Amino acid sequence: MTISAASVGAGSTPDVEAYLGKTAGQRLQRYLDFLRIPSISGIPEHAPDCRRAAGKLADDLRAAGLEHVEVSETGGHPIVYADWLHAGGAPTVLLYGHYDVQPVDPVDEWEAAPFEPIVRDGRVLARGASDDKSNISIALSAAEALLAARGALPVNLRLVFEGEEESSSVHLEPWLVANAGRLAADVALVADSGFFAGNVPAITVGLRGLTAVEIHVQGPFQDVHSGVFGGAIENPINALAGIIASLKGPDGRIRVPGFYDEVVALSQEERMAMAALPFDEEAMRAELDVPALVGESGWTTLERRGARPTLDVNGIWGGFSGEGTKTIIPGRAGAKITCRLVANQDPARISDLLRAHITEIAPPGVRVEVVAMGGGRPTLTPRDLPATRAFAVALEASFGRPPVFVREGGSIPVAASFEASLKLPVTVMGFMPPNGNFHAPNEWMDLANFETGIRALVAFFDEYAAHPAG
Amino acid sequence: MTISAASVGAGSTPDVEAYLGKTAGQRLQRYLDFLRIPSISGIPEHAPDCRRAAGKLADDLRAAGLEHVEVSETGGHPIVYADWLHAGGAPTVLLYGHYDVQPVDPVDEWEAAPFEPIVRDGRVLARGASDDKSNISIALSAAEALLAARGALPVNLRLVFEGEEESSSVHLEPWLVANAGRLAADVALVADSGFFAGNVPAITVGLRGLTAVEIHVQGPFQDVHSGVFGGAIENPINALAGIIASLKGPDGRIRVPGFYDEVVALSQEERMAMAALPFDEEAMRAELDVPALVGESGWTTLERRGARPTLDVNGIWGGFSGEGTKTIIPGRAGAKITCRLVANQDPARISDLLRAHITEIAPPGVRVEVVAMGGGRPTLTPRDLPATRAFAVALEASFGRPPVFVREGGSIPVAASFEASLKLPVTVMGFMPPNGNFHAPNEWMDLANFETGIRALVAFFDEYAAHPAG
Repeated sequence: MTISAASVGAGSTPDVEAYLGKTAGQRLQRYLDFLRIPSISGIPEHAPDCRRAAGKLADDLRAAGLEHVEVSETGGHPIVYADWLHAGGAPTVLLYGHYDVQPVDPVDEWEAAPFEPIVRDGRVLARGASDDKSNISIALSAAEALLAARGALPVNLRLVFEGEEESSSVHLEPWLVANAGRLAADVALVADSGFFAGNVPAITVGLRGLTAVEIHVQGPFQDVHSGVFGGAIENPINALAGIIASLKGPDGRIRVPGFYDEVVALSQEERMAMAALPFDEEAMRAELDVPALVGESGWTTLERRGARPTLDVNGIWGGFSGEGTKTIIPGRAGAKITCRLVANQDPARISDLLRAHITEIAPPGVRVEVVAMGGGRPTLTPRDLPATRAFAVALEASFGRPPVFVREGGSIPVAASFEASLKLPVTVMGFMPPNGNFHAPNEWMDLANFETGIRALVAFFDEYAAHPAG
Repeated sequence: MTISAASVGAGSTPDVEAYLGKTAGQRLQRYLDFLRIPSISGIPEHAPDCRRAAGKLADDLRAAGLEHVEVSETGGHPIVYADWLHAGGAPTVLLYGHYDVQPVDPVDEWEAAPFEPIVRDGRVLARGASDDKSNISIALSAAEALLAARGALPVNLRLVFEGEEESSSVHLEPWLVANAGRLAADVALVADSGFFAGNVPAITVGLRGLTAVEIHVQGPFQDVHSGVFGGAIENPINALAGIIASLKGPDGRIRVPGFYDEVVALSQEERMAMAALPFDEEAMRAELDVPALVGESGWTTLERRGARPTLDVNGIWGGFSGEGTKTIIPGRAGAKITCRLVANQDPARISDLLRAHITEIAPPGVRVEVVAMGGGRPTLTPRDLPATRAFAVALEASFGRPPVFVREGGSIPVAASFEASLKLPVTVMGFMPPNGNFHAPNEWMDLANFETGIRALVAFFDEYAAHPAG
């Protein structure tokens, strides 16, 4: 375990630091064991693994001294709940994370087996190493260290760890509503975010929402000979390509009528703040190995990915994709599309607009069906929340520089759920590396930031307890 | 074996008919055994099966009394050659067929295992049942019956059966050139065609050619998170869809500059003859179960599929196609495209035009590569060839109605190879049902036409020997 000595311990207190210092080995092992469980929520075969991850998490929480630890059934993958509520008079923090992970395809692009974590050059390489098992493990370790060193936390703490974040959090919101009576808190800390480009701590004040649809195009009743029928009938792949192509203009703008109606305009002040962020376009282009960064005209790259909605095809299929040539007109084709949304776009409304538009432009020779696949609302969080301020102080103390406030391109629909279901202010935070390959092969976490993150969270609890009103 | 009694025997002679009558069972078994060999030329794992099919075919030819039977190496799947050359003074017919078959995907849409032929309601259901093992088996049975019944054929016969027709016939043309010295003939009968709609015998005077390309689009170096990067970079699937969509206009015309330059215009006479063909548009639409027949504006369905070129995507892939949602921008996407060509389009030139055009329109945020995947020339055959006339007489005698002359939508590049390499006039013929699901699940052959086809070929040999100059 390689840790940058300069930062470790800063922000923490001597009593906690003493405990953390002597338990680093066990802590790493616990984290690696967590990563070994392939808790892929979106693949039904991995349901037992999700349950196993929940069970291990509950055991670890109990061992760390948390109370009321519960693996709570939801109808899908369970939610793990725990609390510690003995800080009379201090505020209550509800901290959220998710123990499920993304699928691992294409698995042959991984440098090592995704669920056999390796530690190399100060990094842990594994599916879930950053998203989101790092943030969960950091929270667990911070609470454990405080309880071990002081016998108490400075704040009251509720932990809610779900197992369906990577598959649309279907059961979280009903669970939050059903359990609202026992989830009273002053703030929800959504621990599913990370650093800004480079190694700059960040607090996420804007998250994009998401709406997902599938397009199914049916041509002839089965694959047919492209010689015998070519020219006589519509080809479902050509039709699908035409539909997809027509969804965006050459200027990168989405051409679905009404799509931009609810978008909150970026203020001049926000555009200036975003322009001032330490962001290296060329580094990003080179890292992704693309010829150019491109997108909707009239906006910078950071604006496009943080404050503008998108429409991306996540997958497409149809016909013959094996070696060689198969001269068919396929019977069907399909595509998965997600739109990232920004405040105040509504996922259900956008899904309806997509369905209506695609149905309208579908060519006459095929049958087109658009299936809504769920989504989540975007969020915009005020920067002057007391918990947000306290976390900014803690990050600066631990990492030696103040955080930047960013509008993140990703979606954490649950952030909106906490706002909507529990009426809680939400601070989105976390310690993932911005280029950590989450949702991609070779996901990784920086071990130094993992360790410093524990100290930052300890510092946050102390700071927030000291300044509960900001 | 259900055979329509009305037609069997017509066109044949009593001596041959006596032999055919008592050997029907063995003949069917031989054909079914041939169908049991999964000789899929396009899938490398099936190379031993192709070799097995060639070996069985050679054995059957020897048993039937053909001479100089040879399994000839080509560098790919072998070519089976046989001849019988003792009809002094009579013309020589070179008859071509192919013993390889298409892949069977999607295999779950078959009513029975593709290589376990079943006989039901007068049909044989199996991959290759029509294309092209029916025509090969018919030719073998006709020669066998004549040799058994008369001890001689009325014409000299050379049989050339290749094993790569379904995978671009890569080695046929070099083999023809290398063996031109021993392939002298008066006509090439390309036995890889079939009936017109319904049960109307047909002689194919036009065949479309083919050019195949693959488009590979490379975006980011791997799949990346669609939240973190969505809006910042081009999505390779969106880019690919845009490219494909731009290749055709809303009028169905292909928008690749120069694409139509070499197309031979349909004469008014040809258009009238095509309009007079017994073709039921609504039956075709209903059979394919599509909402409408569509295509290039300004042409009838038969013109579009017989005399106009096409551009069809045969397969497309990219990103995540599993269950659920995976929020990625994929690293790459690809598609297979084939164009059916008509006289006098040149496959290599069209391939070059496609590559140049696609490269030019490729968007700046991705890398696009176009790979030529081979092709074949289109043909147009004069209707007054002596062999074509003789075959028309034989078809009318056997099936009770004169054949129609059609421009077929499919491609038999080897027809052009025989013209080009051996300088032989070519008659394209055969007995496949027009809706026989070749290249698709549930391929089938009509057993009555199989039997009558044998008689028609016998009648053709007699007629051509009697009228070698038409």
